Amino acid sequence: MSNLRCIRCASLWPPGDYPEGCPSCLAAGHPATLECLYTAAPHDLAIPLPVLAPVTLGEGATPTLDAADLARAEGVGQLWIKCESANPTGSHKDRMSAQLVSRARLAGATRVAAASSGNAGVSLAAYCAAAGLQADIAITRNCPPLQRDAMERFGARLRAFEDSLGRWPYVQDLCRNHGAFAGTNYLNPPVGTHPYGVEGYKPIAQEILDDCGLPTDIIVPTARGDLLWGIYLGWQHLHQTGRIDRLPRLHAVEPYARLSRALATGDARGQWESATEQYSIAGGTCTLQALEALARSGGAPVETSDAQAGDARQRLERMGLGAELSSAAALAAVSRLRLAGKLDAESSVVLILTSDGRRG
Amino acid sequence: MSNLRCIRCASLWPPGDYPEGCPSCLAAGHPATLECLYTAAPHDLAIPLPVLAPVTLGEGATPTLDAADLARAEGVGQLWIKCESANPTGSHKDRMSAQLVSRARLAGATRVAAASSGNAGVSLAAYCAAAGLQADIAITRNCPPLQRDAMERFGARLRAFEDSLGRWPYVQDLCRNHGAFAGTNYLNPPVGTHPYGVEGYKPIAQEILDDCGLPTDIIVPTARGDLLWGIYLGWQHLHQTGRIDRLPRLHAVEPYARLSRALATGDARGQWESATEQYSIAGGTCTLQALEALARSGGAPVETSDAQAGDARQRLERMGLGAELSSAAALAAVSRLRLAGKLDAESSVVLILTSDGRRG
Repeated sequence: MSNLRCIRCASLWPPGDYPEGCPSCLAAGHPATLECLYTAAPHDLAIPLPVLAPVTLGEGATPTLDAADLARAEGVGQLWIKCESANPTGSHKDRMSAQLVSRARLAGATRVAAASSGNAGVSLAAYCAAAGLQADIAITRNCPPLQRDAMERFGARLRAFEDSLGRWPYVQDLCRNHGAFAGTNYLNPPVGTHPYGVEGYKPIAQEILDDCGLPTDIIVPTARGDLLWGIYLGWQHLHQTGRIDRLPRLHAVEPYARLSRALATGDARGQWESATEQYSIAGGTCTLQALEALARSGGAPVETSDAQAGDARQRLERMGLGAELSSAAALAAVSRLRLAGKLDAESSVVLILTSDGRRG
Repeated sequence: MSNLRCIRCASLWPPGDYPEGCPSCLAAGHPATLECLYTAAPHDLAIPLPVLAPVTLGEGATPTLDAADLARAEGVGQLWIKCESANPTGSHKDRMSAQLVSRARLAGATRVAAASSGNAGVSLAAYCAAAGLQADIAITRNCPPLQRDAMERFGARLRAFEDSLGRWPYVQDLCRNHGAFAGTNYLNPPVGTHPYGVEGYKPIAQEILDDCGLPTDIIVPTARGDLLWGIYLGWQHLHQTGRIDRLPRLHAVEPYARLSRALATGDARGQWESATEQYSIAGGTCTLQALEALARSGGAPVETSDAQAGDARQRLERMGLGAELSSAAALAAVSRLRLAGKLDAESSVVLILTSDGRRG
């Protein structure tokens, strides 16, 4: 790795840990993700990652299913399902945790602090256990009991808060004043998670290319946009190294309008809280990195109601696929995008099934 | 496939469906598994399977973790963990279901009947959903609620029985008289599951060879021995085709002595019921195929108490690995085998982590 570069102001920073994103933009009141830059070996086609030999529990290389029946039903040319649920703790988060926790250990940290009541907390707890680090997870009181139980079994210390936003000052204090390595965002307005962690999602692009060729559209359940941005970075690498001649459009699925409102104003810093059962993509905020992934790839935000996501979940289950509501929303989004004319019979579409909801 | 051959009397049978095993041996009161024989293409090194293009949910190609710390702690040369928990519904059963349900559909069946209150039932329900078949699952009243919920979400019809043995006449009637395809054994004394299904476990041997080389010992949680026998068949194929020059020893982990008693008498048909929390490997019976896998590979049965399995489970969790009690028993068995002198500092050992207990 040669440098980190701000996705907002393009300033360069030396390799290192910037859990709060670009220091300049943060000082200006605009939290912004830093992007990793690499000095590539001329003939090295592998996707570069920050930590070369990370702690592993067997994450990645997940299956991609050809869902021809769904493609026909939805009126698109091809439809694949990328099963991130096959990761060790059951969600895509394991790819990020492998890089992030490994970086934490290399940086000399002995503990990782994070705010999560779901997949990220379980994943970080497991990878901290594998790496011999202490995980400190701030959960909300409505954290599903099985998620909580899994974090504790993996040895995490938990602290419960009444509401979601209350967790962030606690994590911030642990990271700023007590030597903890940040496992999630703790700012409000938020920034993406540690760039070394988000890089862990890049191989998803390579795996999709290997399994499906180059699709036209990829649909990604999105909250703070780490996954969306990480997948974008993977395609960007494949494009910059001449492996593909165009980018697929990345579409962000969310339970209510956040990104469309931020796109309208050009400002990601709003608060648009609303009620939803789509637990893993809930929350009132979005991030600049999510806006950038949409803008650079030509994709769109898509809102899916709980009822639409529930119907999609049942359709997936009747195909033998477990999916949490937030993941099933990606299928619901296909119908929305088809109706809006953004997908058609020529489209080749990949849904990211982020989690099977095994601890829902 | 050229024929099926009885593992007890060596009689040959034409390819087809024999849910009750060898008809001759059954008539003689000795339920016995049939083994699939293939006419191999001379240069074809791939492991042959009965159904070439099965219905898939992305099963197989599971990760194998190098657990060097555990190897040191246990005093063995090398120790790997084969994570069958990474399969789509969370257990090794998905490999069997893919072959079995695909065969059911090819054979013209519209429903699959099975007795299971656990991983097999969930897996069969999911693959039946994927294949468009109806699953009829006989469960016990103590079936964990999340297992039951998963089966229903995948569209299975459930029928609950007071005790385990009560399920078998019901499944037998569905299979013998109502056109259902057998998804599990329904005889007592039992026979292995449909040979086409059990063949689905053979690629585990190939994957271990690819990831670890040829180990000396493999430890397999065992009830009726489908997995044990299927893994044996994989190694047997690799041996017969000259890919390896010796077989690894396969050891069977069970919660109380069944196989050692059957080995002592040479008769697998006993009933040795006892209480155990090791749910997935419980039950009072064993099978001839399990005895054969031990005898042909030179392995041994190992009993692990619930307390030993519980300690092992906690050790795995503190490494970031979820494991159901029946899977953690494989780690407990390493200590037992080491103490008994059957493993030593030269041993290279693979544990089969059959399930992460996500619905326990």
